[in-house]
Amino acid sequence: MRIEDLETPSALIDFDRFERNATRMADRATELGVRLRPHVKTHKCAEAARIQSQGHFGGITVSTLAEARGFAAAGFGDITYAVPVAPQKLAEVVEINSRIDRLSVLVDHMVTISAIEETARSHAIVLPVWLKIDCGLHRAGVDPESELALALATRLSNSGHIDFRGVLTHAGQSYDASNRTEALASARDECEVTHTFVKRLAKAGVEVPETSIGSTPTISAARNLDGIGEVRPGNYAFFDVFQAAIGSCTLDDIAFSVLATVVSVHPEEQRAVIDAGALALSKDPGPTHIDPDCGYGRIVAVEDQHPLPGLRITSISQEHGEIDGPGTAALRPGTRLRILPNHSCLSAACFDSYRVVRGTEIIDEWRPFRGW
Amino acid sequence: MRIEDLETPSALIDFDRFERNATRMADRATELGVRLRPHVKTHKCAEAARIQSQGHFGGITVSTLAEARGFAAAGFGDITYAVPVAPQKLAEVVEINSRIDRLSVLVDHMVTISAIEETARSHAIVLPVWLKIDCGLHRAGVDPESELALALATRLSNSGHIDFRGVLTHAGQSYDASNRTEALASARDECEVTHTFVKRLAKAGVEVPETSIGSTPTISAARNLDGIGEVRPGNYAFFDVFQAAIGSCTLDDIAFSVLATVVSVHPEEQRAVIDAGALALSKDPGPTHIDPDCGYGRIVAVEDQHPLPGLRITSISQEHGEIDGPGTAALRPGTRLRILPNHSCLSAACFDSYRVVRGTEIIDEWRPFRGW
Repeated sequence: MRIEDLETPSALIDFDRFERNATRMADRATELGVRLRPHVKTHKCAEAARIQSQGHFGGITVSTLAEARGFAAAGFGDITYAVPVAPQKLAEVVEINSRIDRLSVLVDHMVTISAIEETARSHAIVLPVWLKIDCGLHRAGVDPESELALALATRLSNSGHIDFRGVLTHAGQSYDASNRTEALASARDECEVTHTFVKRLAKAGVEVPETSIGSTPTISAARNLDGIGEVRPGNYAFFDVFQAAIGSCTLDDIAFSVLATVVSVHPEEQRAVIDAGALALSKDPGPTHIDPDCGYGRIVAVEDQHPLPGLRITSISQEHGEIDGPGTAALRPGTRLRILPNHSCLSAACFDSYRVVRGTEIIDEWRPFRGW
Repeated sequence: MRIEDLETPSALIDFDRFERNATRMADRATELGVRLRPHVKTHKCAEAARIQSQGHFGGITVSTLAEARGFAAAGFGDITYAVPVAPQKLAEVVEINSRIDRLSVLVDHMVTISAIEETARSHAIVLPVWLKIDCGLHRAGVDPESELALALATRLSNSGHIDFRGVLTHAGQSYDASNRTEALASARDECEVTHTFVKRLAKAGVEVPETSIGSTPTISAARNLDGIGEVRPGNYAFFDVFQAAIGSCTLDDIAFSVLATVVSVHPEEQRAVIDAGALALSKDPGPTHIDPDCGYGRIVAVEDQHPLPGLRITSISQEHGEIDGPGTAALRPGTRLRILPNHSCLSAACFDSYRVVRGTEIIDEWRPFRGW
């Protein structure tokens, strides 16, 4: 079966690009002397995670308990659920944790620690827990300079029902970078904030078993990760237009794309419509801080992903992608196009299956662990 | 089972609000003297479409062939697939059309008409086809003042392999309205452009069997639809923050919401995080043309959807919704919140099932026909 036989929209993974991205990051982690715990939320499928883990210890990071369930069943034994855990989810965490080596959770609040201790006590078990600290993103995570941070770490370290895994952070602000140099600054934030906090804890007599940082932009840019234990990049498996814009990769590295069909063309008005809209590409606006006119993804040739000039996705609604530009003159209803999405994680999550391709040949089909 | 027993994020349909919205629109169509062919892409489930169709002829509008397959199997006999059809999809159109009274498709290009004629001829059948005209959205649809529009209509009308259903348009520009008065102007566009084109065709000897217009904003605002055959609003089943902003409904009419749990709170920085992000709420920016600070949905109380002041969803990533505001002082990890999404169609499409609720009691579970 070949790409031209597929229904549209379809999600495509270019296997050779994916494997190259996976190998490069694995090698990079090895060179930097850190353990690689890839964040698998980008694709949510076991086949991809196995390739990403080659040469490393096999641990992964997930964003939902649906992923944790799926990857646990697929044989992954060391999983970190990297969104602060809701107390209501602890029963399921206990259940999954009991089936594998370790499902670790994140906390940044005393209420959650209390809930974890209570749950662990009632099951007469010990649950593995990371302390999430904020290194500048100001999303989740406790301010590492606060008294609260010290109190949380002390409590985790001293708890008889908690296996304190260590300190974890994520410099998501690296997505605001305009280039690799700015991403490097975020990487330094991750490292320095972590080091400073670990030293502060040491002074207070709290030993930190492990440190975990991560994001594709920061690990792509980092030059030195001395003293850091593990990294959790995820998007690099596929990359996307956003990562290319901020310098994490080139457009040619992008391994995920959406196959679409032209369904309407009005070349006299330089407009056309494809059958991939907000439910296939997501409504992620892309790197507008670098290119306000980036549109909703980059249009490339079906056979080899070479960029097609003169075509821009100006607007998307549920099932329509609107294209304008002089390149519309070459389109007809039925013309196939391939779209490199702005944000491959969100685009991939729209699909129940991915077609794995080598060139234009379909060589496999992978299914993600969707939902929650 | 009650809302408090649900995992999060969960998709909720408030049954009473949904039924009220459905009844109002059905009554409105009856009063305006038009047939109601609801666009079911908003929810994609048969239970909802049956309620929306009550008192009308039972025809529906869909946005994908997956919906067409699902609704056909669920007993819906008259379906319009309201995205211009890709030539490659015609084999499946023929198959679905053979199982029900009619699966109609849209065209706006000669290439597509040729493909339909060829397909119909090879199967020795007649396929039902609408001509899509552009009434100002400039997405799909032929310019009704062009020579091409006349040529397309003439060819459809004369074809021995096409059952020419009529002229169809969609004033999607109504979503740019800031209020009901502006939406009313778009409604007039839909009607006037359609009437003018039908008259032009009549002069040329082309009879138009039917006319179809539609969108929730325009039908909500319209005062007179004389001469129009059918309407295709869809979003009104659920409504959302966007429709409330442009005056199609009130916030209290919104029947779809997402249940979320607070997982991180840092009240000293007035920030919190919920476990509903871009994959539960979509990344639709909402009515920013009216309120640039609208955020990614409105936070309301779980039990009765009353607005919770002082809380704003400022940013969303894959599985994190970031909240700021003084209202965060009242939150704890584990606090449940309900989110009225900016765009209910895109948010609903993220879920494999919806919990139907009356008050806080779960009374049913509906499953959408997802994918393509």
